[in-house]
Amino acid sequence: MLKIGILGGGQLGRMLLQAAANYPVETFVLENDNECPAAHLCHHFTKGDIKNFDDVYAFGKGLDAITIEIETVNTEALEKLEAEGIKVYPKPSVIKTIRNKILQKQFYKENEIPTSAFIVTQTLDELKEHIGYLPAVHKIGVGGYDGRGVQVIKTTDDIEKGFNAPSVLEKMVTIKKEIAQIVAINEKGETALYPAVDMIFDPDLNLLDYQVSPADLPEKTLWKIEAISLAVVKALKSPGIFAVELFVDDQGDVYVNETAPRVHNSGHHTIEANYSSQFDMLWRVMLNYPLGNTDHIIPAAIVNLLGAEGFSGEAVYEGLNDVLQIENVFVHIYGKKETRPGRKMGHVTILSKEKQELTHQANRIKNTLRVTSHPTK
Amino acid sequence: MLKIGILGGGQLGRMLLQAAANYPVETFVLENDNECPAAHLCHHFTKGDIKNFDDVYAFGKGLDAITIEIETVNTEALEKLEAEGIKVYPKPSVIKTIRNKILQKQFYKENEIPTSAFIVTQTLDELKEHIGYLPAVHKIGVGGYDGRGVQVIKTTDDIEKGFNAPSVLEKMVTIKKEIAQIVAINEKGETALYPAVDMIFDPDLNLLDYQVSPADLPEKTLWKIEAISLAVVKALKSPGIFAVELFVDDQGDVYVNETAPRVHNSGHHTIEANYSSQFDMLWRVMLNYPLGNTDHIIPAAIVNLLGAEGFSGEAVYEGLNDVLQIENVFVHIYGKKETRPGRKMGHVTILSKEKQELTHQANRIKNTLRVTSHPTK
Repeated sequence: MLKIGILGGGQLGRMLLQAAANYPVETFVLENDNECPAAHLCHHFTKGDIKNFDDVYAFGKGLDAITIEIETVNTEALEKLEAEGIKVYPKPSVIKTIRNKILQKQFYKENEIPTSAFIVTQTLDELKEHIGYLPAVHKIGVGGYDGRGVQVIKTTDDIEKGFNAPSVLEKMVTIKKEIAQIVAINEKGETALYPAVDMIFDPDLNLLDYQVSPADLPEKTLWKIEAISLAVVKALKSPGIFAVELFVDDQGDVYVNETAPRVHNSGHHTIEANYSSQFDMLWRVMLNYPLGNTDHIIPAAIVNLLGAEGFSGEAVYEGLNDVLQIENVFVHIYGKKETRPGRKMGHVTILSKEKQELTHQANRIKNTLRVTSHPTK
Repeated sequence: MLKIGILGGGQLGRMLLQAAANYPVETFVLENDNECPAAHLCHHFTKGDIKNFDDVYAFGKGLDAITIEIETVNTEALEKLEAEGIKVYPKPSVIKTIRNKILQKQFYKENEIPTSAFIVTQTLDELKEHIGYLPAVHKIGVGGYDGRGVQVIKTTDDIEKGFNAPSVLEKMVTIKKEIAQIVAINEKGETALYPAVDMIFDPDLNLLDYQVSPADLPEKTLWKIEAISLAVVKALKSPGIFAVELFVDDQGDVYVNETAPRVHNSGHHTIEANYSSQFDMLWRVMLNYPLGNTDHIIPAAIVNLLGAEGFSGEAVYEGLNDVLQIENVFVHIYGKKETRPGRKMGHVTILSKEKQELTHQANRIKNTLRVTSHPTK
């Protein structure tokens, strides 16, 4: 039985471990928090820092393979483990490229992947020299996550919001749609593409609001999305699961926004809606099984459940009973003890053959389910 | 967050815990074996004997609710826990009735549930006085499980196979079909019925061979099955999940064979094929959520994966790669370290809109996947 470890014990680890229980595999998790969402679902939990060389190296030493839940891990330790024959999904070199937004953009350019025009800025003063580039999006090179580290700079009035650190300034694209394309690739280089997903964002939090699968786009655009996503994944030269996020503009042109080298929020519906979920698929890749069937069984929508504004502390799920009364709905609560405004606390999947029903129920759920907290005593 | 315990840590516990991770619930398992299939998937594992009063009582004392994976548990401890306000699913009184095949048959009779004619025998000598009752099935009152404790007595030649212990002798019914009907019932007495399932048995092992959902039967017969199953569950007067196994004879008459007061092998396809799986449903009952939607999303078949004859020891899964190559197939390996002939080691679910495809793939999988063992060193 292979021994496989996960760096990080959040909801992605949790759902990976739910899927792992279908296969003969011994599971390990490294995370700082004994009570993290994935801690109780693995065979062996290790308390430690995924950013610390010694912790990651000691954790990985006896394993057959290792994967990540988040990019902010100690890649030096992963490189040493990889050199010693432990498989790492994705390769540490890919994590290093992707988690630095400057390197990621340069990677697209070098590989002729369509992406919005950009320049690199080192300081806030340097940003001010590029007023002609506006409107644009300023993204910090290192350390941004879940909407942090991204600023929209529409006019010179916004320029002070920019980062005084190495960043990319991306020319604004007229976005008609945001699309996620999940791709699996195994050791042999075989690939499997999930149906593309329409992503609808909350403009305030820059967090996924809800998504619909499959995406409603002309076939020609879907082909472009698939071809470009495959080009990204092949250029990365690493087995694993990748979520390529793309923009489609008014002309039907497609641009890569960014890529996550791991299971991703935009693929959560695949648990119920597709034959092989993204979590199942990553185990297939790591256990050297054939790639799964990415076809959808039935169309789906997902609503993210975020901690409500103004509430911090022990989580309370309001409206859960009402949502569980809806017939074609699946609730996933991540088991985080504490809620905070905007924190990802769970998601809800809706299945229906009718697209209109998906949107209707997604909105209904958004207005029904709230994560608040117990009043502080 | 409610604290809920499971007595028994086998595959049913394992699949219950996979489903539990979608909800806010703190999980506990009691089992004799640290490495049992469910041990690593709960928040708190306790090593102990589910048949021992002290172990069960100590385990259940601090919990909000408790459920079972198997009927051979210490019901005296459960009754004491129940008296102290801990919810038990199903009620201990139900476990006591059902796990004794004599009491179970008498229960059907008292409640006017159609079931095959029977007499109770106390000894083998007493059995021999009832030759006129043959052909019949002799079932030991206490201790039978998974095909053990059942003997077919066709003629007087078979009579020595009977049990020299309190047993029921059931008149043989001309079975056209064996059907399983899973029913959920909550605290309020609300019920939900899954589509009935066709069960096909291996005549040698008396273990479920494969099953197809929904069952292929005239509507009138399905109504009878539902009405009778509902009558069983209502007469048991306990919330929980129940699998009612029934015979349909050539005339379309329906008889209850036996009932399991818990999640059951005949409902494993509901994980992928129905909106709310039987595992999800039991959590809904125990967490006081609304009952789930039992509708099937797509028809399904299940093949049980049993330990191959002639192999005992550390399990090896032959043909797993071939089976995982089939597009509409889901594999569930239970993570039991040791295989034995006939031991339930896993199951495979096949989804397809075409019934013929289900049967075809079920047979293909039966002939492809085998659980053997490493040669003894």
